[in-house]
Amino acid sequence: MTGERGPGAPFEDVVDGMRREGLLEPPPSGAVGEEVHEGTGRVQLTFTPANRSVRVPPGVSVFDAASWNGIAIDSTCGGHGTCRKCLVRLTAGSAPVTRHDRRTFSEDQIGDGWRLACLVKATHDLGLEVPPLVTRPKASTVGVGRQVILRPGVQKRYVELTEPTLADQRTDLVRLRDAIEDLTLNPDLHALRRLPNVLRQSDFKVTAVVVDEVLIDIEPGDTTGRRHAIAFDLGTTTVVATLLDLETGTPVAVASMLNKQQPFGGDVITRISATMMDPEALGRLTELAHQTLAELAHEVCDEGGVAPEEVYEVALAGNATMTALLLGVDPEPIGVAPFIQVSADWPVLLATDLGLAVHPRARATIFPALGAYVGGDIVAGMLASGLDRDKRVRLFIDVGTNCEIALSDGERIVTTAAPAGPAFEGGAIRCGMRAADGAIEVIKLDASAEDDDAAVTLGVIGDVEPRGLCGSGLVDAVSELVRVGLLDASGRFVPEEDAARDVPRLATRLTTVGAGERVFILYRATPDTPASESVYLSQRDVRELQFAKAAISTGWTLMLEELGVEPRDVQQVLLAGSFGSYLSPASAVRIGLVPKLPVLRIVSAGNVAGEGAKMVLLSARERAGADALLEEVRYVELSDRPDFNDRFVDQLAFPV
Amino acid sequence: MTGERGPGAPFEDVVDGMRREGLLEPPPSGAVGEEVHEGTGRVQLTFTPANRSVRVPPGVSVFDAASWNGIAIDSTCGGHGTCRKCLVRLTAGSAPVTRHDRRTFSEDQIGDGWRLACLVKATHDLGLEVPPLVTRPKASTVGVGRQVILRPGVQKRYVELTEPTLADQRTDLVRLRDAIEDLTLNPDLHALRRLPNVLRQSDFKVTAVVVDEVLIDIEPGDTTGRRHAIAFDLGTTTVVATLLDLETGTPVAVASMLNKQQPFGGDVITRISATMMDPEALGRLTELAHQTLAELAHEVCDEGGVAPEEVYEVALAGNATMTALLLGVDPEPIGVAPFIQVSADWPVLLATDLGLAVHPRARATIFPALGAYVGGDIVAGMLASGLDRDKRVRLFIDVGTNCEIALSDGERIVTTAAPAGPAFEGGAIRCGMRAADGAIEVIKLDASAEDDDAAVTLGVIGDVEPRGLCGSGLVDAVSELVRVGLLDASGRFVPEEDAARDVPRLATRLTTVGAGERVFILYRATPDTPASESVYLSQRDVRELQFAKAAISTGWTLMLEELGVEPRDVQQVLLAGSFGSYLSPASAVRIGLVPKLPVLRIVSAGNVAGEGAKMVLLSARERAGADALLEEVRYVELSDRPDFNDRFVDQLAFPV
Repeated sequence: MTGERGPGAPFEDVVDGMRREGLLEPPPSGAVGEEVHEGTGRVQLTFTPANRSVRVPPGVSVFDAASWNGIAIDSTCGGHGTCRKCLVRLTAGSAPVTRHDRRTFSEDQIGDGWRLACLVKATHDLGLEVPPLVTRPKASTVGVGRQVILRPGVQKRYVELTEPTLADQRTDLVRLRDAIEDLTLNPDLHALRRLPNVLRQSDFKVTAVVVDEVLIDIEPGDTTGRRHAIAFDLGTTTVVATLLDLETGTPVAVASMLNKQQPFGGDVITRISATMMDPEALGRLTELAHQTLAELAHEVCDEGGVAPEEVYEVALAGNATMTALLLGVDPEPIGVAPFIQVSADWPVLLATDLGLAVHPRARATIFPALGAYVGGDIVAGMLASGLDRDKRVRLFIDVGTNCEIALSDGERIVTTAAPAGPAFEGGAIRCGMRAADGAIEVIKLDASAEDDDAAVTLGVIGDVEPRGLCGSGLVDAVSELVRVGLLDASGRFVPEEDAARDVPRLATRLTTVGAGERVFILYRATPDTPASESVYLSQRDVRELQFAKAAISTGWTLMLEELGVEPRDVQQVLLAGSFGSYLSPASAVRIGLVPKLPVLRIVSAGNVAGEGAKMVLLSARERAGADALLEEVRYVELSDRPDFNDRFVDQLAFPV
Repeated sequence: MTGERGPGAPFEDVVDGMRREGLLEPPPSGAVGEEVHEGTGRVQLTFTPANRSVRVPPGVSVFDAASWNGIAIDSTCGGHGTCRKCLVRLTAGSAPVTRHDRRTFSEDQIGDGWRLACLVKATHDLGLEVPPLVTRPKASTVGVGRQVILRPGVQKRYVELTEPTLADQRTDLVRLRDAIEDLTLNPDLHALRRLPNVLRQSDFKVTAVVVDEVLIDIEPGDTTGRRHAIAFDLGTTTVVATLLDLETGTPVAVASMLNKQQPFGGDVITRISATMMDPEALGRLTELAHQTLAELAHEVCDEGGVAPEEVYEVALAGNATMTALLLGVDPEPIGVAPFIQVSADWPVLLATDLGLAVHPRARATIFPALGAYVGGDIVAGMLASGLDRDKRVRLFIDVGTNCEIALSDGERIVTTAAPAGPAFEGGAIRCGMRAADGAIEVIKLDASAEDDDAAVTLGVIGDVEPRGLCGSGLVDAVSELVRVGLLDASGRFVPEEDAARDVPRLATRLTTVGAGERVFILYRATPDTPASESVYLSQRDVRELQFAKAAISTGWTLMLEELGVEPRDVQQVLLAGSFGSYLSPASAVRIGLVPKLPVLRIVSAGNVAGEGAKMVLLSARERAGADALLEEVRYVELSDRPDFNDRFVDQLAFPV
């Protein structure tokens, strides 16, 4: 294996970009390019003293990687290289020295490995020592470099009240209100039930718990230091919960699990179908969603050492179908034309409405949706990526079975959904599988390799024997086969004789299985393993991917036309969602999944849905921002366009 | 029995008053005074074709009596003698002819018995024929002549929506909102769950059910004709439920029962004590309150032929303790000095929070309280009697164990509570009993009667053999004994020799029981019945009543001083509550329970708490009026006044 594959190429682009943007001094010799990670296309960061290892896509900043994984690093600027507070020390691996580092650290410190975490790009495995927090952050960085000023909907106030007398017969509630002038206190019946006794048992020294102007509880003594919330990313496949400490704005624990609705089908359509065929299914699916959230809540509270009663708010981002099923709303009208939701937004709910055993009056915020197929997860993603606040022309693509696309020209935002089909999740692909252990996720072909083994380099999840091909591997495979000339622009494998002539080292892997379907062997256990038992890419797989990418590129092509923007003018493409984050930007460009742009402009946005959910918990103002997106973003229905099919066919070919 | 007793005297005052106010032509001979009711001090009105008989205090208008008892009579002016729509025909008994009658009816019709119901005072038993409603009322009369414009919080709108298409993908909620422009629709999760299916199963022809801007349900087809609510008067002793048809503003059914909390004690203090001694008691009392309301709701729905799901709102008026127990709030701080409520007002609740099985998302409005002992029942009473809207100087007195007093000078309102003790409910009175069958409720003494039997005339509830003395009988007894000179101004029975000299006919009834306590025999089964087994009034009973009336008169005296009003300037005294309504105004004046005023100015206000609860259901604007009372009325704590005891002692004597 050589440095030719893996994150090498994108990394050089990143460095080039940083250099152009003036962030980087010329690299000291040996500091860049060495220790480039080989294998899976991920880099591993190990943080001490937390002693946690995380795998992240190459190119993200250490600060963001830490933040996304709940490791708190001091910062007041939110990772923009200006506050010079996000100090880390490299204990393994190296990183270039920026001019900001030189202004922050002494030569000795730099020699000891001290760097500003927001300027260290994770291009290879690193060990990092994080000093304890010295400032209590007033702001947190979440999403794609979004700095959120801490102002949670959950507020606590400790007060010491004067006791009532015959001359001062104010009600308990008024007495409390008079002592808390900066918050509105609308009482909840639960809080009123507790108020008289808690006041009198605590000598009138109590903490009021207020969520969005509602007094939800009263606690004895001073509990202001304990304030938590849980952000949920309710995916069709995977559900992620992040427990947040609202005092510091930092994640305390993260947990994820497969959505327990899986037995009813892998995607939204099969689950909607289940409710149409069986009147009991909706109730069961709602119950399973509740169970999933409840188990995750239990897990993060357990891990974070937080009592469930200290969780006063939850936020949830999910697509329209997941949200409907969670809330017990019949999803059938979402599933069949003309694709109608019951409502774009939801009333104020309680966490108990989602089956959660946290504080009994904890509030639940559910992200609103822009359309039946541009759901709350995408609104959360738009919020987390600042799509409405950035003046650049930016394209947001959440790649999946249903692909959501949004385009902002800095003024206006349009959005649509493109039916990409299951290819990216391994469905309908002969050797397809989910992104789990044994899945090939990175592929590099080297037509000039010295031997057959070196001609194909595979990155496999878990570093185990390959068992199949996940979405990012599929994109890589097709992209590389196009690049080396084994697939033509129309997506057909070239004739064997052309392959043997032009790419002899790889042509031997081109063969047939079954009734003569042409395939390219990616991996076989032994040279004698039959082609049908190897991990391969078939002609039909290429077609599936073509349909998927054509649906997506038709989507963004039409969005660009809606706003009158040329592809070359797109300044940033955000690849979102659990799949998009793992795509190789170079491969995405090569197959035409994204506009033909410098690779540097194509950014992995991470789990922006979950980040958006965290944001609205950290700042009630951001919640208003999410609601405002409903007004600001225009939804465009593609299936209503008479030219959609023609445009789709135009997009099937690979760019030349 | 002669015409000297019973309602004769007050009736003459009423007639005199009407004559002075120009409402009455000089009575045709024989039309007034004949058929004056003898016996219980109540008159009986029998309505046809409803075939319902009701017992009402003498002097109320037939229109009000019908309205309070759920018998709908046409009216657009609300019983003010101006619309001339409230036609009734006397089928038994007679009534004077007013000039309004002459303008409305022909001579023949008047001869046939036609009258305007709002101008017929119920002074004796009447039979009344009520024509079917010809106008659908836009207003209802409730409370003390309060006309309420029908504008319930519960609104229904029938709409026929266009079906969605790919070109019109509005959400179900927006589609509904766009069709209902005059109402705000904030969705409730329950309604959102039903909306998609009900729309599609009803060809998009549905009725939206909106309560106070919240969309609580969506019903197939046109159900706009079915709109109901229940008003509850949650008394410590008795609970009354009135089912209202919100389309017409009329009561459909009324039911009452004893509060199931009775086993925990007869008054609020014993129930509060129960919660202080037993930690389980609060939960049990809450449950019993819920059961009481639920049974009544079931009963009125059953009687009215209304499905419980068609009840979309409830309103409830109760004192602060009953309200706290209902809502599961610990009442202890209300029960002990300094008498603190948790809150004066309550958040928006659901009927299910009160244990009611009506529409699952029906709203519940709980009347706010002005103080721990001036509760929601009094706020409802103030609303129903228009205390805040009338420019007259008016004194409102709700007589009971706890007596609430409010005074308005037409601009300002002050209120207080006076601890009258249990005398008015028969407690601490030797032969005291509740106002139930066998209770003496009216007493007339005739010192110049020809024989012993005629010297004492008793009105007994149920016209059965007397068993005891209820509150109004107690007041009558003391009042009459003062009047005939058997009790002196200080409340002492006069010496036997003085009695024998001055009032020989009655002096024989003055004797002693037990250890020589002096008593006045009201009733004995046979001349041989021992005094101790008779129904009598004891010296101690007189003292109990003195304490009670002194507490009350101290209360209103101080209220008059607060506003700088002389007793003679009070233009109306409203006697409220189930007890106050049955008091003889003449007796109340005579013992000093109310200021010394012409009896005409002393008005029985009926169950104003229940009326107030009806009002807020009939008109959301009236609900705002109830909330406004919290700001407008100033609560004065008597127990905090250093001069209270001196003033109290001053009030113990009976006026001379």
